[in-house]
Amino acid sequence: MKISFIGLGHMGAPMARNLVKAGHALVVFDIVKANVDALTAAGASAAKSPRECAAQGELVITMLPSSPHVKAVYLGGDGVLAGVAHGITVIDCSTIDPHTAREVAAQSLERGNPMADAPVSGGTGGAEAGTLTFMVGGTQQVFEHIAPILKAMGKNIVHCGACGTGQVAKICNNLLLGITMIGVAEAMNLGAALGIDTKVLAGIINTSSGRCWSSDTYNPYPGVMENVPAARGYTGGFGADLMLKDLGLAADAARQAKQSVVLGAAAQQLYQMFSAMGFGGKDFSAIINMYRTAQ
Amino acid sequence: MKISFIGLGHMGAPMARNLVKAGHALVVFDIVKANVDALTAAGASAAKSPRECAAQGELVITMLPSSPHVKAVYLGGDGVLAGVAHGITVIDCSTIDPHTAREVAAQSLERGNPMADAPVSGGTGGAEAGTLTFMVGGTQQVFEHIAPILKAMGKNIVHCGACGTGQVAKICNNLLLGITMIGVAEAMNLGAALGIDTKVLAGIINTSSGRCWSSDTYNPYPGVMENVPAARGYTGGFGADLMLKDLGLAADAARQAKQSVVLGAAAQQLYQMFSAMGFGGKDFSAIINMYRTAQ
Amino acid sequence: MKISFIGLGHMGAPMARNLVKAGHALVVFDIVKANVDALTAAGASAAKSPRECAAQGELVITMLPSSPHVKAVYLGGDGVLAGVAHGITVIDCSTIDPHTAREVAAQSLERGNPMADAPVSGGTGGAEAGTLTFMVGGTQQVFEHIAPILKAMGKNIVHCGACGTGQVAKICNNLLLGITMIGVAEAMNLGAALGIDTKVLAGIINTSSGRCWSSDTYNPYPGVMENVPAARGYTGGFGADLMLKDLGLAADAARQAKQSVVLGAAAQQLYQMFSAMGFGGKDFSAIINMYRTAQ
Amino acid sequence: MKISFIGLGHMGAPMARNLVKAGHALVVFDIVKANVDALTAAGASAAKSPRECAAQGELVITMLPSSPHVKAVYLGGDGVLAGVAHGITVIDCSTIDPHTAREVAAQSLERGNPMADAPVSGGTGGAEAGTLTFMVGGTQQVFEHIAPILKAMGKNIVHCGACGTGQVAKICNNLLLGITMIGVAEAMNLGAALGIDTKVLAGIINTSSGRCWSSDTYNPYPGVMENVPAARGYTGGFGADLMLKDLGLAADAARQAKQSVVLGAAAQQLYQMFSAMGFGGKDFSAIINMYRTAQ
Repeated sequence: MKISFIGLGHMGAPMARNLVKAGHALVVFDIVKANVDALTAAGASAAKSPRECAAQGELVITMLPSSPHVKAVYLGGDGVLAGVAHGITVIDCSTIDPHTAREVAAQSLERGNPMADAPVSGGTGGAEAGTLTFMVGGTQQVFEHIAPILKAMGKNIVHCGACGTGQVAKICNNLLLGITMIGVAEAMNLGAALGIDTKVLAGIINTSSGRCWSSDTYNPYPGVMENVPAARGYTGGFGADLMLKDLGLAADAARQAKQSVVLGAAAQQLYQMFSAMGFGGKDFSAIINMYRTAQ
Repeated sequence: MKISFIGLGHMGAPMARNLVKAGHALVVFDIVKANVDALTAAGASAAKSPRECAAQGELVITMLPSSPHVKAVYLGGDGVLAGVAHGITVIDCSTIDPHTAREVAAQSLERGNPMADAPVSGGTGGAEAGTLTFMVGGTQQVFEHIAPILKAMGKNIVHCGACGTGQVAKICNNLLLGITMIGVAEAMNLGAALGIDTKVLAGIINTSSGRCWSSDTYNPYPGVMENVPAARGYTGGFGADLMLKDLGLAADAARQAKQSVVLGAAAQQLYQMFSAMGFGGKDFSAIINMYRTAQ
Repeated sequence: MKISFIGLGHMGAPMARNLVKAGHALVVFDIVKANVDALTAAGASAAKSPRECAAQGELVITMLPSSPHVKAVYLGGDGVLAGVAHGITVIDCSTIDPHTAREVAAQSLERGNPMADAPVSGGTGGAEAGTLTFMVGGTQQVFEHIAPILKAMGKNIVHCGACGTGQVAKICNNLLLGITMIGVAEAMNLGAALGIDTKVLAGIINTSSGRCWSSDTYNPYPGVMENVPAARGYTGGFGADLMLKDLGLAADAARQAKQSVVLGAAAQQLYQMFSAMGFGGKDFSAIINMYRTAQ
Repeated sequence: MKISFIGLGHMGAPMARNLVKAGHALVVFDIVKANVDALTAAGASAAKSPRECAAQGELVITMLPSSPHVKAVYLGGDGVLAGVAHGITVIDCSTIDPHTAREVAAQSLERGNPMADAPVSGGTGGAEAGTLTFMVGGTQQVFEHIAPILKAMGKNIVHCGACGTGQVAKICNNLLLGITMIGVAEAMNLGAALGIDTKVLAGIINTSSGRCWSSDTYNPYPGVMENVPAARGYTGGFGADLMLKDLGLAADAARQAKQSVVLGAAAQQLYQMFSAMGFGGKDFSAIINMYRTAQ
């Protein structure tokens, strides 16, 4: 299938390469020329604008940093909706606020282009390996149409409901993740300070009611697990600044929905404080270091 | 074995009954006569004070509401340590602060009585069914000595380390549990307000990085799971006031250890607010109702 | 002077009337016809759009509910900047985010119209009485030009610095106010629960280091002061939902500036929870009721 | 008058010296010999225990670090109540929890010794200068009896109500102070990040509804005020660890009273985090530095 792919950053580039590997013909666009060159070297052809890019595809996929970028790339004069042929399906894989996702989808549909929001989890590692999880918001028909293509880039393709619910699922999951990671950091540090062996403590928590992914799969306390960021100086993984961005989306969405998120907002502020201390580039589990006692 | 059992409340009574069922000879004490009568009817004999009770056993087990009770029952003039024979092992199953647990254990050991703290999880249901988890703090020798006996009351008998670490494990786990439950409440309510089907959302979270016991085993959102308190009006289960007590122990222990627990303290205050509104007797997952919008 | 006045709501209407009383000729616009009628009855003339309205004035003043309204009224095809004559000064008295304020001011200046942001404090009472405080962001020249006219509507006209700083001053003040009010609520309720006479406690705080406007001028505990919302069932005053809006602006601005506001975000969530319980229309000091114990 | 004075630390020593200067005959006790020597050099006589010390006075004053010290010094075998003559009034100036204060006072009264709790504010500077504020809990009769003597050490002698209310007033005030200081830190840092001159911002806040002692008398932002800790590297003043102690007392008292203190608990945790980073010895207004962006 001929696929238009717009946005070739840390996530978009490996995703696009996996589509090429799966045998699709890609036409790509990015504002950074080097990003485009890397993909054309891999077999893709280049377009000069989102509009031109979208005009050539039987399917359009975008992967962009934030809501303003999505609005500009879709709704701008040189944007996707100005170029895409009637009836072509468009998929936005960016993580943005549900409100914007729904607004863009409505405009897309109005022009005759079914749209899905399909934010991912799994990080750059998952993007390289083709093992991302896609959380898809869109009609059942659109989901069935795009799921086989997304399979070239991911392992789990989940249908969350109507347009926007992909974003909702992602921000709700990450809201909870941001909270549980700090919860584990507090519990592990407290236990250590009170004299329990941290591996023993993690073992107990992981088989008890405190059990969670942040403890049993991604424990932030150094020495408890191997092959996690805590075991390699908190490099790699999911950056604290990315968690901060997602908690910001969650807090915003909560405000618009008139829902309170007391712990979520506290977590957001703690990651903000940690980031301002200069550690936004570390894996988000490094927040445990903000709880360490000075020597 | 002849076992002295002191404290026959909601937890202690079924625990003692399970020891009787396992063939042990029990001598019991409680300040409430009716509690004692229920156990003697089940085959136990009664003692007139903790001291008299402890004096008769080859092993002493206590199950009491809080630190002051433990101090009084162990260290008082008519207390356990005043009566127990030299060399007899004593086990306190109460959930109390690690500091007091260590202090009492030190005094017990000084008198020649090895001691273990062995707080439980599993609630009254687990106590009745004999499926409690025991978190044991004490020497390896003491652990090996008492584990077979605890097996009559529980399923998992975990050795956490030296004296006091049983309490540490329990409060660290419950600190995390108190946080994750509110995190799930916030995430589920936010998702519902943003229009995603709550069963779908729970399903996604439960297979993603937000996964936790509070979501996949004890989800607080009504209609998501069966056989949880949320499915029966938040009755039964683990009361909000008990969670509040444990978070208080955690906050206190953190203060003494000079560790900060930002989300833990916020969770404590939210359960306190919820309790003050009159809902302390509800299951702790009912805290989700504090996040509901008025109609 | 002939003044164009756009936005005749609860705040704008009495402000406009005070300008009429001061002898100015007003041309007004509002999307609600009844609001316009009330002002024409008071001597103003009516215009059919922001554009037409702005076109007639020697000075333009706007008073609008939120950032999107300000953008639409200023930058829309039928908006202020499309109509206002070159060189005319424009003043926006709305409370909005500093980022939007600066963006609109830049576009205004580009078209040859000096602009000031001049959000107010003092509520509808101050608007009626002409005793508002204006926090003005703009050049020194603009400030000197408009201060005498603002005097017809307010008592204190403060120059905060360049464009946007009026908004900054307002949201920083209200961020602090939202926090101190909850602080006073917690301190007063705690004192009452611990058995001190609340008037005595307020007296001590008001002459000690806990002293603040929320305690000495607007105490939320019933019976401590007269002539405050707490003395009349929390009616009148500054609504909880308005405080919630301002804390939202502060949290947003903090996010953009990469500053953490831990207590500010917690305060925002507490007002949100209070509002969701159905009390957003009460004075913001009513938040003390969320801390009351059920009877 | 012959006064027994027990506890000659940073606060107690200058307080005792002021009593000597006022012409009283002092008999003193402290566990640190050097502290005692300094006072005897100033004219006091020394006693060998709290009991001996208390036995000689017509009035007993104590100034101790915490609740356990107060219990030991009053209730121990060699303590105040074991020595003091029937009918003599005793005053505890320590800052401790109201519960302990009331418990000790009840035992004192039972033995025939009227007691007052009289915690102070004003720091070591106020102790040296004799300008402390005393918050007195006790009967009207006791208050009238001791106020003239306290006047030798302080400027404001405030009657708060029955026994324990001195402590209640102090912890409620300091709870609020701990919150407002962080509130000011957040507001000032946010304003600075958003581009307003910080002196201008402080000026606006100080004449608006955000006004508070932490802003208008003790502003934490460097350069805004002279003669405050922020102007001298946050040395001197009221240490962050002392604020942390008082917030701990407030949180404990709140727990016992079943009152929630959401912002108070958050403030406590932030000071704890700041202290753990190694800054507990700095003035508490230095907490603003935890909000600074890394360079």
